[in-house]
Amino acid sequence: MNLAGKVAVLGAGLLGASFARAVKEYGVADRVCMWSRGESTRAKGRALCGVFDEVFDTPQEAVKDADLVILCTPTEHIPVLAKEIAGSLKRGAVVTDVGSVKRNICKKCSEIINPTGAVFVGSHPMAGSEKIGLEYSDASLFKGRPCFVTPYSEIEAEAAGLLRKIWTDIGMRVHFSTPAEHDAIVARVSHLPHLLAGLLCINASNFDKDDLKKYAGPGFRDTTRVASGSPAIWDSIIADNRVEILHALKSYAANFNEMLEAIEQSDFKLIGEMLRKAKDFRDELQKTL
Amino acid sequence: MNLAGKVAVLGAGLLGASFARAVKEYGVADRVCMWSRGESTRAKGRALCGVFDEVFDTPQEAVKDADLVILCTPTEHIPVLAKEIAGSLKRGAVVTDVGSVKRNICKKCSEIINPTGAVFVGSHPMAGSEKIGLEYSDASLFKGRPCFVTPYSEIEAEAAGLLRKIWTDIGMRVHFSTPAEHDAIVARVSHLPHLLAGLLCINASNFDKDDLKKYAGPGFRDTTRVASGSPAIWDSIIADNRVEILHALKSYAANFNEMLEAIEQSDFKLIGEMLRKAKDFRDELQKTL
Repeated sequence: MNLAGKVAVLGAGLLGASFARAVKEYGVADRVCMWSRGESTRAKGRALCGVFDEVFDTPQEAVKDADLVILCTPTEHIPVLAKEIAGSLKRGAVVTDVGSVKRNICKKCSEIINPTGAVFVGSHPMAGSEKIGLEYSDASLFKGRPCFVTPYSEIEAEAAGLLRKIWTDIGMRVHFSTPAEHDAIVARVSHLPHLLAGLLCINASNFDKDDLKKYAGPGFRDTTRVASGSPAIWDSIIADNRVEILHALKSYAANFNEMLEAIEQSDFKLIGEMLRKAKDFRDELQKTL
Repeated sequence: MNLAGKVAVLGAGLLGASFARAVKEYGVADRVCMWSRGESTRAKGRALCGVFDEVFDTPQEAVKDADLVILCTPTEHIPVLAKEIAGSLKRGAVVTDVGSVKRNICKKCSEIINPTGAVFVGSHPMAGSEKIGLEYSDASLFKGRPCFVTPYSEIEAEAAGLLRKIWTDIGMRVHFSTPAEHDAIVARVSHLPHLLAGLLCINASNFDKDDLKKYAGPGFRDTTRVASGSPAIWDSIIADNRVEILHALKSYAANFNEMLEAIEQSDFKLIGEMLRKAKDFRDELQKTL
């Protein structure tokens, strides 16, 4: 049995289009409709065989009669889009998003959507790629990856349950948390590694003696892969999650300074303990793959 | 035509055993002999089909008549091992190593080996894996990876030329540099990313609210992969390359503090510029794969 009759995907980048493919592949819904702000994306969407049943020119048309609406635009547009569609939603429709910061989005969208008789519950599927755009969409993008579902208040419990089923059906490991807990967690497991990978590239590009790119082995490549992501998304991530990102950066700086001092003083015992702790954590992480 | 008649591999961990496999697969030498300090490693080496023609119980026996000797032990044992074999080397033999720090090793080993009529030239093949040990050896480990060859003085030019041919034959992109330049470069492209990956794991493991492992997506996994490496090798890396590692850490700290301040002040223009610079570097790096 389908979990949702009609799904509306608003915004068809990598995540939105991959979600549409997954919904089709795993039989989560009968129909998948799409709207995207860019005319060329809509044209590409129409040309994709068997992914979107219909592509609309306005978000209001796309969400009409939809049981599930998923907002896959850049984070800063999500509350704006929620306002645009609020009057067109079916009563009882579930609206979610894929934004990587949740506190701000969930508060605003719940306030906009819930009074209409539809329900908003945030999601954050932690899947992606440094390749962006509908061209790279892939039904298996979500497989084995973690996904947050972040109900903002108790009235959203039923909708959260439906979202848990849908994300699980397309292969994700679903975790419930409050929007605030989510933001503290992703600051440490997502935003911090992205910023550090970028800083490592900046450091290498500033090295004045030689072009370091030709010497970069697999370790450097892996450690910096995410620095290839689009810088455009960071304005809204930092605007929305500045406090938790600063907490994460400052606790990281404390670890960094402890290591720097240990190396300065050739304190091999402390260096060894720190690297052992890191290895234990990473080895355990590997087992959760 | 073979580049070397007989190769002696001393120390048969992942790198030594993979080198032996590659030498066989690409026809670089007629015979590959092996010695390893651990009796169990020697036994495993004897059991590996078609990799080692002979496994010896002493390094002196293994290097007898060898045209190329490659020292694949942990870094701190390399000069010790050089002393042990110096009296048994064939005149004109080329001795190299795979240590990840070169200034100290090249100075010591050239002083030990060159007066015997053999020639030492350091190598650093930047290939590896977080999996260690002969069990994981793989002839294709070196393919497409960078390899430093670091002659210490002009008299080593001919030996360096032979090493360039051999590493190129098994698939590596060879770069010549002085041992000192090498150490400055690897502090930034290898040692720094390893330490930062470790610090990111330490930071995550210190998070007191939850176990962050279950939320780690592909970005966190890639960024921290190298933290799974053996902590045991770091004593000698830091002992040998402390000054350059401290330079690298301090220049990184300057970039880090600039980013931290930009986020504190919501200076989106500067944040965007920094992340754009990082992305440009990483995108260019991707093209060199």
